[in-house]
Amino acid sequence: MGRPYLLLLLLFPISLSFAQTRPRELGLPFGVLPTGPLNAITDVAGLKVGHLTKVEGDNIRTGVTAILPHEGNLFQEKVPGAIFVGNGFGKLAGVTQVQELGTIESPIILTNTLSVAAGIEGAVRYSLAQPGNENVQSANALVGETNDGYLNDIRGMHISSDEVIQAISSAKSGPVLEGNVGAGTGTVCFGWKGGIGTASRKLPEPLGGYTVGVLVQTNFGGNLQISGVPVGEKLGRYPFKDALEKSDGSCMIVVATDAPVLERNLERMAQRAMMGLAKTGGIASNGSGDYVIAFSTNEKLRIPYSNPSQKLLNAEFLANDDMTALFLAVIEATEEAIVNSLFAAETMTGKDGHRIEALPKQQVFEWIKGSK
Amino acid sequence: MGRPYLLLLLLFPISLSFAQTRPRELGLPFGVLPTGPLNAITDVAGLKVGHLTKVEGDNIRTGVTAILPHEGNLFQEKVPGAIFVGNGFGKLAGVTQVQELGTIESPIILTNTLSVAAGIEGAVRYSLAQPGNENVQSANALVGETNDGYLNDIRGMHISSDEVIQAISSAKSGPVLEGNVGAGTGTVCFGWKGGIGTASRKLPEPLGGYTVGVLVQTNFGGNLQISGVPVGEKLGRYPFKDALEKSDGSCMIVVATDAPVLERNLERMAQRAMMGLAKTGGIASNGSGDYVIAFSTNEKLRIPYSNPSQKLLNAEFLANDDMTALFLAVIEATEEAIVNSLFAAETMTGKDGHRIEALPKQQVFEWIKGSK
Amino acid sequence: MGRPYLLLLLLFPISLSFAQTRPRELGLPFGVLPTGPLNAITDVAGLKVGHLTKVEGDNIRTGVTAILPHEGNLFQEKVPGAIFVGNGFGKLAGVTQVQELGTIESPIILTNTLSVAAGIEGAVRYSLAQPGNENVQSANALVGETNDGYLNDIRGMHISSDEVIQAISSAKSGPVLEGNVGAGTGTVCFGWKGGIGTASRKLPEPLGGYTVGVLVQTNFGGNLQISGVPVGEKLGRYPFKDALEKSDGSCMIVVATDAPVLERNLERMAQRAMMGLAKTGGIASNGSGDYVIAFSTNEKLRIPYSNPSQKLLNAEFLANDDMTALFLAVIEATEEAIVNSLFAAETMTGKDGHRIEALPKQQVFEWIKGSK
Amino acid sequence: MGRPYLLLLLLFPISLSFAQTRPRELGLPFGVLPTGPLNAITDVAGLKVGHLTKVEGDNIRTGVTAILPHEGNLFQEKVPGAIFVGNGFGKLAGVTQVQELGTIESPIILTNTLSVAAGIEGAVRYSLAQPGNENVQSANALVGETNDGYLNDIRGMHISSDEVIQAISSAKSGPVLEGNVGAGTGTVCFGWKGGIGTASRKLPEPLGGYTVGVLVQTNFGGNLQISGVPVGEKLGRYPFKDALEKSDGSCMIVVATDAPVLERNLERMAQRAMMGLAKTGGIASNGSGDYVIAFSTNEKLRIPYSNPSQKLLNAEFLANDDMTALFLAVIEATEEAIVNSLFAAETMTGKDGHRIEALPKQQVFEWIKGSK
Repeated sequence: MGRPYLLLLLLFPISLSFAQTRPRELGLPFGVLPTGPLNAITDVAGLKVGHLTKVEGDNIRTGVTAILPHEGNLFQEKVPGAIFVGNGFGKLAGVTQVQELGTIESPIILTNTLSVAAGIEGAVRYSLAQPGNENVQSANALVGETNDGYLNDIRGMHISSDEVIQAISSAKSGPVLEGNVGAGTGTVCFGWKGGIGTASRKLPEPLGGYTVGVLVQTNFGGNLQISGVPVGEKLGRYPFKDALEKSDGSCMIVVATDAPVLERNLERMAQRAMMGLAKTGGIASNGSGDYVIAFSTNEKLRIPYSNPSQKLLNAEFLANDDMTALFLAVIEATEEAIVNSLFAAETMTGKDGHRIEALPKQQVFEWIKGSK
Repeated sequence: MGRPYLLLLLLFPISLSFAQTRPRELGLPFGVLPTGPLNAITDVAGLKVGHLTKVEGDNIRTGVTAILPHEGNLFQEKVPGAIFVGNGFGKLAGVTQVQELGTIESPIILTNTLSVAAGIEGAVRYSLAQPGNENVQSANALVGETNDGYLNDIRGMHISSDEVIQAISSAKSGPVLEGNVGAGTGTVCFGWKGGIGTASRKLPEPLGGYTVGVLVQTNFGGNLQISGVPVGEKLGRYPFKDALEKSDGSCMIVVATDAPVLERNLERMAQRAMMGLAKTGGIASNGSGDYVIAFSTNEKLRIPYSNPSQKLLNAEFLANDDMTALFLAVIEATEEAIVNSLFAAETMTGKDGHRIEALPKQQVFEWIKGSK
Repeated sequence: MGRPYLLLLLLFPISLSFAQTRPRELGLPFGVLPTGPLNAITDVAGLKVGHLTKVEGDNIRTGVTAILPHEGNLFQEKVPGAIFVGNGFGKLAGVTQVQELGTIESPIILTNTLSVAAGIEGAVRYSLAQPGNENVQSANALVGETNDGYLNDIRGMHISSDEVIQAISSAKSGPVLEGNVGAGTGTVCFGWKGGIGTASRKLPEPLGGYTVGVLVQTNFGGNLQISGVPVGEKLGRYPFKDALEKSDGSCMIVVATDAPVLERNLERMAQRAMMGLAKTGGIASNGSGDYVIAFSTNEKLRIPYSNPSQKLLNAEFLANDDMTALFLAVIEATEEAIVNSLFAAETMTGKDGHRIEALPKQQVFEWIKGSK
Repeated sequence: MGRPYLLLLLLFPISLSFAQTRPRELGLPFGVLPTGPLNAITDVAGLKVGHLTKVEGDNIRTGVTAILPHEGNLFQEKVPGAIFVGNGFGKLAGVTQVQELGTIESPIILTNTLSVAAGIEGAVRYSLAQPGNENVQSANALVGETNDGYLNDIRGMHISSDEVIQAISSAKSGPVLEGNVGAGTGTVCFGWKGGIGTASRKLPEPLGGYTVGVLVQTNFGGNLQISGVPVGEKLGRYPFKDALEKSDGSCMIVVATDAPVLERNLERMAQRAMMGLAKTGGIASNGSGDYVIAFSTNEKLRIPYSNPSQKLLNAEFLANDDMTALFLAVIEATEEAIVNSLFAAETMTGKDGHRIEALPKQQVFEWIKGSK
C-alpha cells in the first residue's frame, strides 16, 4: 500500500523542482564548460543587477532591469565595451558612441520599447547626480528594449525615469532573479512566457580561469530547441506552422567578463552570443531587435574620464589567439540563459485579458531526459 | 563733400547685408552646381522644418529643430533612409533600425545632448497620437544632438517632450530660419557662434533635375576655411594654436533628396556630407559627434507600414552609375549650409556670462573677395 | 535457415546507404521547411556549380569550386549580392565592392588559402575573355578560401588560374557532388573529414514559393551537434577537451535564392547562415574565416553593366516584413549542408601521411535515431 | 643691358623649380602643423617604400609600389592596422582580416586593378620565403589598386608576381620618388597626370611629438582645389562641366604613424584621410575605389605571431582624448600628398596614343600666389 505515498514523493519533488529549480539542476546539458558559482552574470565580480518590476492593475506588466558593470563611478572609470547588432529592428540607444570610443560609461538599462526615453532620462539623471560628476555635461546612456505590448499597455508609457533610477539603485551582486521580473516582466518567447534569464561560464585555469556572464531579456521567436531537442516541433509551435506566423520579437543580451579583453575582441564575443541564441532555435526574424552588449570589468582596463593629456593608457590584454575559449563560453552561457528565462517564467495574464502560458516544463524535461 | 555720405552709403548697405544676406548673395562661391529656389532643405518638395527656440533668463539657450520628410503620416508611409557616422562621439538615437530596415518612420529631431530623452519621448508621443496610428506599439525615433553646454545650462535638461511636439507641429515648408534658432540656438562652431544652416542644389535636367537639400546644426571645430580661404588661420583661431585646444564639438547633418534613391545609395550620399564638412576645415575631432541622416522623399519609394503579405514593393530607382552628381550636390550643399550657419548666427551671451562672438563677417568677406 | 541472408540483406543496404545516402534520406531531421527537388543549391534555377578536384601524389589534396549565379554574362548582367563576415580571419577577395555596389559580377570561386591569387587571376581572365567583355578593364573577383594545409601541400600553391577557369567552365546545373571534391577536397571539419555540402529549401506557396540554396566548404571546428544530438561530446572530440585545442578552421557559405531580394535583405539572409552553422556546433573560433556570400538570381533584379544614363532601374522586391521565412530557410539549409558535407566526405590520407577519418556515420546515425 | 640675363635668371630657376620642387617649397600652404624632415611617409622611422616602374613600348605604363611598415619579419611581428573604405568600388584584397584581427602582417602592395592577383601572389610568396616563416601556411596580403587603363594596356596584365617581389625587395627608407613611378606610373587625377605622392606631419612635443606619414596613389576626379584655390574651375575642368562627365577613378591612401595607436583609433585616423582628399576637391565618385590603410609602427605595439598561450599583450597606447592632433595631421598630410603627386607627375603618352598632360603648374602657382 506504499505506492500512493511513493507516487506523491516522486511527484511533489519534481513539481516543486519545476517551480524552483533551474534547468541545469534538473540535468539538462548545455555544453562542456563549467559554470561559475551562481551560474549568473553576477559571477563576474563587482557586477550588479537591479530589477524594477511593475505589475499593476489588469494592464501594466512591464519593468526595468539595470546592469552596473562595476561598483564605482562608471562615468569616471569607464569600461571597455562593444555592441553587436544581431538584427537591428529595435531602439537600443547609445550604440554609436560605444562603437566609436570602445567604452561604456553608464548603467545598462533594459526596458520596454516605448520607455527608452525614460530609460535614457533615468540613466542620464543618475549619472549627472553621482558624486564627482558635478561638471559632467554629456553621458551616453545605453538603453535596450523589447516589446511587451501583448501583455502590457505599452502605449501608456508606464515607466518613469524615477523608476529607472530605482532599478539602478537597487542593483546588487549575488543571485539574480529570473523570469517575470524587471524588463522581462511582460515578455514572450517562442510563444511561451519569456523573461529575464542568466548564466555563466568559468574557464578552466589553463584557459585563463576567466568568468563570462550573460543576462538576457527574451521576447523572440523561432523553432524552440532545448538541449538539442526540437521542443517547438513537439509542442506544435514553430515558425510558419500557420503559414503566416512570423516569430517576431526581440532579444537583448548582455555579456560581461572579467577577462582582460579590449573592445575589438569584446565585439567578437558579442557576435558569438547570437550563435548561442541560434542554438535555442531563434531565427532573428525580421521584426526582432536582437542586440548584444559586451564589456570587460577587468580593473586594469578601466578608462579614466580625467586622463592627463598625453598620458598613455597601459593595458594588459588577451591576444586574438586566446579568444576562442571565451567565444565558446559566450555561446554556451547565452543558450543556457535563454532556456533559464523560459524555465523561470510563469504563466501571466495581462492587457485586455491576454494570457501567455509558461513553457510546459515537465513535458519538456521528460522529452529531453528521454533523448539522452 | 559728398564723400562722407558716400562712405555711409557704402557702409550701411554692407552692414545691413551682413545681418540679412546669405554668403552666396554676397558673392561667396560654393562649387559649380546651381541651388534650388530657396537654397534650403525645403527646396525638396513636401519637406517641412520646425524650430522651437528657447532663450530664457541668463542661462537657457537651447532648442529643438524638427524635420518632416513629408506631409503625411510618416509611420504609415515610411521613407527610405540611411545614416553615416562621421564620428560617433554622440547620442543619436534610432540608428540601428534605420541601418537594418532602410527606413525612416518619424520626424527627425535635433536638440541638445542631454535632451535626447525628451526628443524621443516627443517623437514617440507624436507618432502614437497621429490619426491612423491607434494600434501602433513601436516607433523608431531619430533624435540627434550637439552639446550647447557652454552657453546653455544643459544639465538643467530644459527641453520637454511637449516642446519637441511643438517643434514638430510648427514645421512648415518655405524659407528656413538659420543661425541662433531651434537646435542651433546655443551652438559654437570654429570658436564662433554656430547654429542652424541650410542649402540646396538642383541638378541640371540632363543629370536628372533632382534636388538635394541639406540642413546642419553646427557645433564643431577645426581650421575654418570659407570658399577656400583659410579664415581660421587669418583670424588666429585654429586647432592646437594653444597647444592643447582640441576643436571638439559636433555636427548633425540632414540630407534630403527627391531623387529616387534607395537606402544603400542614400548611405553613400550621407558619407559625402562629411566631405563637405571637411571643406569648411572641420576635422571630426575626437569629441565631435558627427552624423549624417539621409533620406529620399520620392513618392514612389515610400514603404507602407501595412503591406499585404507577399506583396512586392515596386520601385524605380537610380543605378549606382548615376549617383555621382548627387554626391557632388551633397558635398557642395553641406559646405554651404555650414558657412550659412556661421553667417546667420549672431553673438550670444548665455550661461555663467559665457559669450560667443559672431564670425567677423565683414572681415571674412573682404578676405574672400580679395582672394578672387 | 534464411536468417543469415536476412541479416546480410539488412546490413548491406545500410552499409551502402552510408556511402551513398544523404542524412535526410536516412531520416535525420533538419527543421520544418521542405527542400527543393535536389536538396542542393542548384535547385535555384539557372545556377551552376563546377568542381576541379586535384589529388596528385602523396601531398596534393586540394581543388576549386565555382558557383555561377546564372548562365549568361555575369559582368553584363550583374546580380544583387551581399556578404556577411562571420569571422574575418580569412582572405576572401572582392568583399568591399560587393558591399558598396550591392552587386556580384563574376563567378564565385572557392579554393585554398594560398591559391586566392590564382582564383582571382582565373576569374578575371575568364571575365575579360567572355564575348561582349572586350572593352572591360575591371572585374571584381569574389574568391573565398579555407586552409587545407593539414592534408594538402598548401605552400606549393598547386592551383593555377587555368584550373580555376576549368572549374568555371565545367559548371553545370543538376545534382552537386559533395564531400572530398573541389574546394572541399582537403578540408577538415570538427576533427573529421569535411568537404563540400549543399542543401536547399523551397518555401510553401503562401510564403512565396521561393527557393533558397546553400553550398558550404567546411573546414571549421567546435562542438559538433547533429540534429540536436551532441555528437562531438559523445565521440570525445570537442573544444578544449585537451585544454588548448582551438577548434580553428574556416567555413565558406554561399547562399542563393530566386526570391526578389535586394542587397540589404540579402545581407540579412547571409547573416542568418551563421545561425545555421551555430546549430551544428560551430563556434567561429578565432582562427576561423567564416564568410557568407548571398545573391538573388531573380531575373527582374539583374543590373545591366551598360545602363543608359539616367535610366532608372525598375525592380519588384520583397518588403522587410516578408523576409522571415527566407531567414528560416537559410538557417535550416546551412545546418543541413554542413552535415551533408560531413556525411559525404570520406577518410583521406594526404601530406606527410596525415590522415583524417570520415565521421563514423553509422554510430552517429544510431545515436540520432535513438534520441527520437 | 643686364636685364635680359636677369630675366633668364629669374625664369630658369622657376622653370626648373617646377620640375624639381615640391609645392611646399614653392610656398603653397597646407595647414598649420609642421612636416617631418623629408615631408614623406618615410619620416616614420623604419618604414620603407619600393617602386617598380614598368614603362615598355607604346602601351605598358604601370607599376607596383610596396610599403613595408618595418624592417623585420612582418608576419612574425605584425603591426596594428585598420582600413577605412571611402568608396568601395575597388578590389583591395585583405580587408576583412585586418578589420577582424586589427593587424597587418605583410608588405602593403599597390598596383593596377587587374594585377591584384599578381600582387597577392608576390606578397604571399615573399612572406612564405622569409627566414623564420618556413612553417607558415597562411598570410594575408593587402593589395590595393587603381585603374590605369587609359594610359596602360591593363587587360594585358603586365605585372608578374616576380615584379611585385622586386618592388618589395627594393624598398628603402629616405626620400620617396613621386609622380609617374611605381603604382602611379599610369594614373590620372582630376583630368591631369596623377601618380604617387607623399607628405608627413610631425606633432609638436606637447602634442606627443609623433610623426604621421601619408602616401597616395592618385587616380581620381572631382573639382580640383589646391591650397583653397578652385583650380579646376579656373582651368575649366570640373565635374559635369560636360554634363555627363563622371569624375571617376580611385585613390589609395596609406597612413603610417609611430604614435602608439591601436586599431580602433587607427581606423579613425584612416577615416580622416578622406577629409584630406575632400579638401583637394575629390568627390568619391561612384566609380572611385577610395581606401585608406593605416598602421602604427610603434615597437611596443607589435603583435608576435608566436605568442605563448595565455600570455597577455602589454601595450601603452594613446587615449581617445589625445587623438585629435593625429586626425589633423592625417588630413593635412593627405591633402598635401595628393597635391604633391600632381606637381611631381609629368605629361605621359601611353596606350593607343592616349596622352595626359601634367598639371599646368606655373599657372596654378601664380593663381595660388595671387590669392594670398
